[in-house]
Amino acid sequence: MPDYQAILDEIRDEVQPLLVQGHVADYIPRLACVPREKFGMAVVTLDGQLYQTGDAAEAFSIQSISKVYTLTLALQSIGDKLWQRVGREPSGNAFNSLVQLELENGLPRNPFINAGALVVADVVLATRKDPRAQLLAAIRGCSGNPDIRDDPEVALSEKANGFRNAALANFIRSFGNLEHAIDDILDFYFFQCSLAMSCVDLARGFLFLANQGRCPWSGTNILSTDQAKRINALMLTCGTYDAAGDFAYQVGIPGKSGVGGGIVGVIPNQLAVAVWSPALNAKGNSLAGSAALERFTAKTGLSIF
Amino acid sequence: MPDYQAILDEIRDEVQPLLVQGHVADYIPRLACVPREKFGMAVVTLDGQLYQTGDAAEAFSIQSISKVYTLTLALQSIGDKLWQRVGREPSGNAFNSLVQLELENGLPRNPFINAGALVVADVVLATRKDPRAQLLAAIRGCSGNPDIRDDPEVALSEKANGFRNAALANFIRSFGNLEHAIDDILDFYFFQCSLAMSCVDLARGFLFLANQGRCPWSGTNILSTDQAKRINALMLTCGTYDAAGDFAYQVGIPGKSGVGGGIVGVIPNQLAVAVWSPALNAKGNSLAGSAALERFTAKTGLSIF
Amino acid sequence: MPDYQAILDEIRDEVQPLLVQGHVADYIPRLACVPREKFGMAVVTLDGQLYQTGDAAEAFSIQSISKVYTLTLALQSIGDKLWQRVGREPSGNAFNSLVQLELENGLPRNPFINAGALVVADVVLATRKDPRAQLLAAIRGCSGNPDIRDDPEVALSEKANGFRNAALANFIRSFGNLEHAIDDILDFYFFQCSLAMSCVDLARGFLFLANQGRCPWSGTNILSTDQAKRINALMLTCGTYDAAGDFAYQVGIPGKSGVGGGIVGVIPNQLAVAVWSPALNAKGNSLAGSAALERFTAKTGLSIF
Amino acid sequence: MPDYQAILDEIRDEVQPLLVQGHVADYIPRLACVPREKFGMAVVTLDGQLYQTGDAAEAFSIQSISKVYTLTLALQSIGDKLWQRVGREPSGNAFNSLVQLELENGLPRNPFINAGALVVADVVLATRKDPRAQLLAAIRGCSGNPDIRDDPEVALSEKANGFRNAALANFIRSFGNLEHAIDDILDFYFFQCSLAMSCVDLARGFLFLANQGRCPWSGTNILSTDQAKRINALMLTCGTYDAAGDFAYQVGIPGKSGVGGGIVGVIPNQLAVAVWSPALNAKGNSLAGSAALERFTAKTGLSIF
Repeated sequence: MPDYQAILDEIRDEVQPLLVQGHVADYIPRLACVPREKFGMAVVTLDGQLYQTGDAAEAFSIQSISKVYTLTLALQSIGDKLWQRVGREPSGNAFNSLVQLELENGLPRNPFINAGALVVADVVLATRKDPRAQLLAAIRGCSGNPDIRDDPEVALSEKANGFRNAALANFIRSFGNLEHAIDDILDFYFFQCSLAMSCVDLARGFLFLANQGRCPWSGTNILSTDQAKRINALMLTCGTYDAAGDFAYQVGIPGKSGVGGGIVGVIPNQLAVAVWSPALNAKGNSLAGSAALERFTAKTGLSIF
Repeated sequence: MPDYQAILDEIRDEVQPLLVQGHVADYIPRLACVPREKFGMAVVTLDGQLYQTGDAAEAFSIQSISKVYTLTLALQSIGDKLWQRVGREPSGNAFNSLVQLELENGLPRNPFINAGALVVADVVLATRKDPRAQLLAAIRGCSGNPDIRDDPEVALSEKANGFRNAALANFIRSFGNLEHAIDDILDFYFFQCSLAMSCVDLARGFLFLANQGRCPWSGTNILSTDQAKRINALMLTCGTYDAAGDFAYQVGIPGKSGVGGGIVGVIPNQLAVAVWSPALNAKGNSLAGSAALERFTAKTGLSIF
Repeated sequence: MPDYQAILDEIRDEVQPLLVQGHVADYIPRLACVPREKFGMAVVTLDGQLYQTGDAAEAFSIQSISKVYTLTLALQSIGDKLWQRVGREPSGNAFNSLVQLELENGLPRNPFINAGALVVADVVLATRKDPRAQLLAAIRGCSGNPDIRDDPEVALSEKANGFRNAALANFIRSFGNLEHAIDDILDFYFFQCSLAMSCVDLARGFLFLANQGRCPWSGTNILSTDQAKRINALMLTCGTYDAAGDFAYQVGIPGKSGVGGGIVGVIPNQLAVAVWSPALNAKGNSLAGSAALERFTAKTGLSIF
Repeated sequence: MPDYQAILDEIRDEVQPLLVQGHVADYIPRLACVPREKFGMAVVTLDGQLYQTGDAAEAFSIQSISKVYTLTLALQSIGDKLWQRVGREPSGNAFNSLVQLELENGLPRNPFINAGALVVADVVLATRKDPRAQLLAAIRGCSGNPDIRDDPEVALSEKANGFRNAALANFIRSFGNLEHAIDDILDFYFFQCSLAMSCVDLARGFLFLANQGRCPWSGTNILSTDQAKRINALMLTCGTYDAAGDFAYQVGIPGKSGVGGGIVGVIPNQLAVAVWSPALNAKGNSLAGSAALERFTAKTGLSIF
C-alpha cells in the first residue's frame, strides 16, 4: 500500500506554485473572496483510514459536486426511468450551453451539466416530501458529519446572478421537460450548490461509490452495485465539464468537480479522494486540484485503466 | 393606377381554397379559437384612399407586427445607438432560437426576432415615462384610430406560456444586454404582442413608412426619411422570420408578419397594404396572407425591385 | 436628375482616407499584389449614359460577382426548378461556412454563398454544351465588351488554395446534391471567379437587372421581368455575405460584392453602379467600396426603400 | 475465475433474436453483402488463454477499430506532441460531423472521430518510411497472425464513396492542420479501414492495452504504461462515437467499434474481448455486439468501475 500521508504532503508542497495561477470564480461575492492560497486534500480508504493535508478540514462551497448526490436521490426514486428525461452522453459543449439543448429538443445531454441537473432537481422535487431535508440527510449520512449545512448567502447570490440557469430552466420547460415552477426548481438547485463541505467530508461522502453503492461504516445500501458503477461511469465521461476527456486521460479515474474549487475522485474498491483549491482553469475545474489528482494517481500508480 | 378594389376582391376569392390549409397558432387559447375562415385585406394609398375586402375591419392580435412600432419608439429615443445592442442582419434561424445568441454573446441578430424585440423593449422601458401609454398613443396616432387597445387576456396567456421568451430574456440578461427586471420586460413585451388592430388600422398605421417617415394626413414627422427607409430595409431582410429571403423573392416588398396571421407590406412612395388570415405556414407566416400579398404585387406590378 | 459625374468625383475624393484601411485579400498572390490605392467607380443609366471616375476602366478579378451571371444562366436553363437544390434565404453565417449545410442536409441557403454557387455551377455544367464559352459570351454580351476574359493564373492559384471550396463540394456531394465530378465543378467555379472586368464593364453588364431583364441597348431579353426582379431581391437579402442586412440598411439597394474588391449595385428602372477598391472590411466586402455606395445613395437620394 | 467459454456460448444463444434487428452498413457493396446472421466473440486473457464462440475466427472489415492502431503508431513516433493537433474530448456529435471542426478551427476533438483519424494518418505518413507496411507489421505482431491483410476492394469502394471524408480532409487542410496531399491521406485512411481481422485476431491484438502496453507473449513494449492507460481512457470517453457515454454506462469498459460490426473491449490487467455482428444500431455501433458486451460484463462482474 502506498504511503498516502507522505504522498499527500508531497503533493501539497509541489502544487504551491500553481495556487497563484488560474482564476477564482467571481460571479458571486462569497466565492470571489475565498483566498486562492487555500489548498486541502483528503483520502479515505475502504477500510476507513483517513489521510489529509493542508486545509482538508475546512468547508467550502461544493457547487456542482452536489449533482452527484441529487442524481443519487433521483436514481433511488425512479431508477432508469430518469434516462427518459436526461441523456448519458458527454456534451461536447460548455457546462451551461443552450445550443445542444435546442438541437436536441430540451433533453439535456447528461445529469452533470446544469441543464441535466435542473431536470434531476425536478425529479427530486416530485419524489421527495421534504427535498432539502432529505438531501441534507443523505449527505450527512454518507459523510458521517451531522454538521454539514447549506450557506443561504451563497444561494441568494447565486439566485441574484442566476440568469443563465433561469434561461436554461425556462428553455427546458418550453420543451415540456420540467414540471415544477421554475422558481422552485431554481431555489432547490441553488440550495444544493450552496452546501458547504470539507475535503474530509467529501472523501468520506463519496466512499459508497468506491464500495459498490454501500456505505462502508454504516453498511447502508445507498445504491445498487450497478447504479454505483454507472454513476462512476458518468463521472468519468461527464464529471468535469467539457474537460472530461482530458481528465480521464490525465488523471484516469472518475471524478466530479465544482466551481468552488473542489474535485472528488473515486477509485473503485479502494478509496475516495477529495481536493480543494479555489482558482480554476479555463474549463472551470480547479487548476491546482486537477494537477494534484494527476500527481496522486501517478505517484500511487492507481488508475482504472 | 391599378383598380385596387377589384384586385382585392379578386384576391379574396382566389385565396379561399388556401384558408383551410396551414395551422392556426394554438399555443394560447385566445389565438387557437380564431376561425380559420377569416380573411381581410386593406390598402391605403399615400393620398389617403382606402380599399378593403373581407374581414378587413375586424381587429386581431397583431403579435410581432408590434415590433415595428417599438423599434420606431426606440429609434426616436436613442437613434443609431440602438445598434450597439442589437444587429441588423437576418438570423438564418427560427425566430425564437437561442443558438445564434450563444455564439454571438447575447447580441441579437436584429430587432424583429424575439431576442431583438426584448432588447428594444428594454430600451423603450428605459427612455419612456409611461411606455404602454406612449406605445398606444403612437399606434393610435399613426393609424388614426383612438380605439385601438391591448387584450389583457392574450397578454396573460402569453405570459403563462412564455417559457421560451423568458429563456431568451434571462439568457440575454446573463450577457448583460438587458437592464430592467426580466418580468417588467416580458410584461411590456406581452402587452405589445396583445395589441388588437384591423387590416385597415394596420394599413393606415404603416403608411408613414411609405411616406419617408411622415404621417400623410396629420403631417407629423414620426421618423426621419433615413430612419423610415432603414426600417423598410430591415423589414425586407428580417421582417418575416426565417422566410424573409423567400418573401423578398416572391412578394418583393418590405413586410412584417405576426403569428396572429397578420402581415403588413409597404411600397415606398405609394401605399401600405395589410392582410389577415389566421392559419400559418411552416415558417410561422400567414399562409393565405403570404399568397395574397404575392398576388397583390403580381397583379399590380408593384415591387421595389 | 442628379449630376452623376460631380457626385462620383466627389466620392472619389472623400473615400481617399479609407483606402489605407481594411485588408487586401491575400490568400492568393495575384490578389495580394493589387495596390490598395486603386479606386474606380462607374454609373450607367438606362438611357445609356456612362459616368466614371478613378480607375473605372481597369479590369480586376470579379470573384463572387460572377455568381450573378451563373445564376442567370441556371435560371435561363431550368427556371424555378433550381430552388429544389438551393434555397433563397440569407445564411446568417460566413460565406464559406459548412455548419448550416450540415444542419440542412446539403441544401445551400442561397446561390450567393459558395455552397450555393457550387450547386449553380453543377446546373450550368449539366445544361450548357460549352459552359465556359457560354458564360463568357453572356457576360461579353451584357456588358458590350468582347475583350472580357478569364485570368488562368488566378484560377490556378484559387485551385491550389481551394481546400475550403473542395470541402464544400465534397460535403454537398455526400448529400447527393451535386452530379458532376468534383474537379470539374471546382474548375468551372474557379474559372468564373477569375474573370476580369472593369467598373464600366460591370455597370453596363448589370444594367439588364435594372431594366426588367432586358439589355437596354441590344434589346435582348436575358431574363423575364419576374426573374430579374427576383435576382435583385436575392442580391438585397444575400448579395453581400453576412453583411447583407447592414448593406440594405446603409446602402439601400440590391448589390453583389466580390473578394477582389468590386461591388455592383442595381437601382431598378434607373441605373447600375459599380465600384472597386481592393481592401476589404471584416465581412469580406470592399471597405471603401461600401462607403462609396452609401455616399452615392445618400447624395443622389436613390433607394429602393 | 468465470467460466468464459460457457459465458460466451450463453451470450451467443441469447443474442440470436437481436441479429435480425439493426441495419447492416450499406454505403459500400462489400459491407452491404455481409450476412446479418454472422456472430462471433472471442476472449483472450493475460495468461494467453483463448475462448471463442460462433464466427470468431472469420475475418471482417475492422474499419474504425484501426484508429487505435494508427494512434499507437503516432504516439510511438511523436508522443504527446500529437495533442497539439488533435484533442482528447468526446465530440458530442456524430463521428463525421464538420460542425465542431468549424467552431474549433480545424482541431478535431479526438483521434477516434474521422477528422481526428485523418490527422493521425497525416502524422503516420510523416513519421514512417513505409506506413502501410509498418501498420500491417504492427497489427500482425500484436495479434500474432502474419496473414492479416487489407482488402483493396473495400478500400476502393470507400474511396469512390468517400465524399464526406474528402470534405473533412479538405476542411482540416484549409485550417492548416494537414500536411500531406489529400489523396495520400485518404488512400492511407481507406487502407487502414479495409484491414480484415477476426474476433480472435482483435482480442489478441488489443491485449497489450490490458497489459500496460506490453505484448504478453512476445514481451515487446509497444507503448509505455502511461500511454496504454491513456489509450484506454480515450476509448472509454470517445471509442464508440456519440454513444460513448452510454457504452461506459452500460458496458463499463474501454472499447472501440467499427462500422463493419466489430467492437473490441479491454479490461485492464485481465483480458481483451472482441465481438462481431454486422447489423448496427442508430449510433453506428454493432447492435447485437453492444448487447453481447453488456451481457459479458454483467455475467462476469468485470468492470473498471
